[in-house]
Amino acid sequence: MVQKSNDSRGLHGQVAGATSLCTVGLSGSGLTYCGYDIADLAANASFEEVAFLLQRGELPSQTELAAFKQSLSENRALSPLLCEILERIPKDANPMDVMRTGCSAMGVLAPELSFADQDQHAIRMLAQFPAICCYWYHFSHFGTRIDTGSNADSVGAHFLTLLNQREPSETEIAVMHASLILYAEHEFNASTFSARVAASTLTDIYSAVTGAIGTLRGPLHGGANEAAMALIQSFDTPDAAEAGLLSMLAAKEKIMGFGHAVYRTNDPRNAIIKEWSRKIGEAKNDMKLFDISERCEAVMWREKKLFANADFYHASAYHLLGIPTELFTPIFVMSRVSGWTAHVKEQRSNNRIIRPGAEYIGAEPRTYSPLSTRNR
Amino acid sequence: MVQKSNDSRGLHGQVAGATSLCTVGLSGSGLTYCGYDIADLAANASFEEVAFLLQRGELPSQTELAAFKQSLSENRALSPLLCEILERIPKDANPMDVMRTGCSAMGVLAPELSFADQDQHAIRMLAQFPAICCYWYHFSHFGTRIDTGSNADSVGAHFLTLLNQREPSETEIAVMHASLILYAEHEFNASTFSARVAASTLTDIYSAVTGAIGTLRGPLHGGANEAAMALIQSFDTPDAAEAGLLSMLAAKEKIMGFGHAVYRTNDPRNAIIKEWSRKIGEAKNDMKLFDISERCEAVMWREKKLFANADFYHASAYHLLGIPTELFTPIFVMSRVSGWTAHVKEQRSNNRIIRPGAEYIGAEPRTYSPLSTRNR
Repeated sequence: MVQKSNDSRGLHGQVAGATSLCTVGLSGSGLTYCGYDIADLAANASFEEVAFLLQRGELPSQTELAAFKQSLSENRALSPLLCEILERIPKDANPMDVMRTGCSAMGVLAPELSFADQDQHAIRMLAQFPAICCYWYHFSHFGTRIDTGSNADSVGAHFLTLLNQREPSETEIAVMHASLILYAEHEFNASTFSARVAASTLTDIYSAVTGAIGTLRGPLHGGANEAAMALIQSFDTPDAAEAGLLSMLAAKEKIMGFGHAVYRTNDPRNAIIKEWSRKIGEAKNDMKLFDISERCEAVMWREKKLFANADFYHASAYHLLGIPTELFTPIFVMSRVSGWTAHVKEQRSNNRIIRPGAEYIGAEPRTYSPLSTRNR
Repeated sequence: MVQKSNDSRGLHGQVAGATSLCTVGLSGSGLTYCGYDIADLAANASFEEVAFLLQRGELPSQTELAAFKQSLSENRALSPLLCEILERIPKDANPMDVMRTGCSAMGVLAPELSFADQDQHAIRMLAQFPAICCYWYHFSHFGTRIDTGSNADSVGAHFLTLLNQREPSETEIAVMHASLILYAEHEFNASTFSARVAASTLTDIYSAVTGAIGTLRGPLHGGANEAAMALIQSFDTPDAAEAGLLSMLAAKEKIMGFGHAVYRTNDPRNAIIKEWSRKIGEAKNDMKLFDISERCEAVMWREKKLFANADFYHASAYHLLGIPTELFTPIFVMSRVSGWTAHVKEQRSNNRIIRPGAEYIGAEPRTYSPLSTRNR
């Protein structure tokens, strides 16, 4: 069979390198980080343990975890120059553009001068991304310069503290932990692969992560939970959701938050975030969005055999945490930076520049004609 | 023969997509843009004609070229907010980090809201990158806020005008044209490929170019002309260069500016920039660096059969244009953005998300052990 020229597009199914960090669709529930099943980690670990696991390859001891969290805590505060840069970004900006610019600015103001410092810079990004998001948000929307430090004991609690300017509840923190764990890593997805392409030139870690943020920003990658929120919020009741979805399906409209490019029968992350969405709804005594979401899930499965993916129940869960919809994808960044930086380090450890070939489909050789002869 | 796991690293020789923009090593001198040989373009075209060719696929008519240049000219001035951001970046910053942050800031302050506007945003980057570099450079080094507009008739003349704060000579402008043409495009090199990976998620054009800048920043990609400058400047005479190179070769030290990952017998760009380096030396009555460069080239060929690549004679040429060595790679950005944006548009025109697979080489499936049991 002759290979069609389009088959090379996207590199789907082609091996572009090796990784110790993750499997997608291989064993257990279908997603493992460093050998641990995602369901096992989400049920038992904190996000900081998972971030440590991705960074170092093993779960931390008690001492190691304490030191890691201490280091995250000490690195939280944004530099005054970074704050001044964020203050220049207007309210109507795309928050993913804010994250991309904030990350790039971190790298120009306090660069990674040696790969020997890479762990420290990975920690700085994990520590400061929540504040980049929240500092810009509060300043641009309310004109307030928030304190970017906090006494919170975790990345998730720190983010909720800065965003809502109050101490989060235990349930709220637990939802954030689960969410951050679920989004932390996903093998050679497009944003991670872009980070590895950048890293393969031996550039700095901020360049690689800045590129990854810009790649995640695309609607074919990040952003599905924001689209799911828009869908769910457009319905007032489960019955209205069912009727609305059926008419959308009849009109062959695209419905976000269902199905997956790699998973075929279910997304192992869905059952986990679904339970947390239920719990936060119960804790807040507000099940409206959860009930609507559950009906959407049932209808999509019944009508199309499409399963809810990791993004779908994130919408209702995040909403009850007080998170504005436009900040959903930046949370993905705060989490996935743990995976991106791990991939950068892995790429560096056994590097070869990533430089594929291209099939040429352009003009035949031709010669330059003087400008004066080119009249159109 | 069993394929080794490392063979997938780098995707070398694997086709990752199709392009109409460029061939490397296929015909003519070995480098073509949209069917035109690089030697033909460098001898006859202006950089603006080449940028138009890459953007639209055909050389412009007189009317089209005039409109294109008018549009570039009108888009030169940086916005006040962008200037305020650049003013916060210190003097000792890596200028590539400045370019990356400046590009990201352009995208957050005036985003690409629709792909229908992509041509306009490509023009904005072509028009403003010289000023991003020069505004930051003058403010951080000398405390002056330069006017980022100019009456210069081309990107190259505009850059030299802003940098040196005087009108460039015709020879100086001609060297910049040749240099910008030579660096404009090079198929699926790492930075361009990273732009295409980002674009494949349907993200905005600034995200794709920001990632490309960060990728180019790596020493395995951009930066060879800066390294060549350091080498050449370390010698006082051609004889000293010969002796120095011989002892470096004997010590098996890496010598930058020679050989190429794709070209095997010569780099078609070398002869072109070499002649411009000679001409600018003659015009300035200063042949010292050229003579040293020429001896280096002869020694490397005689001893190692290694040819000078596009970067090598750029060093002496740029130096005589008054360009500080640390700004060499940012010029690469000002040029290559014409190719990057053309690739983004091409990727969008026939898109599939770039999401390769990975070979898993990590831990076997294992189960979580409680933190209290993990003592190390």
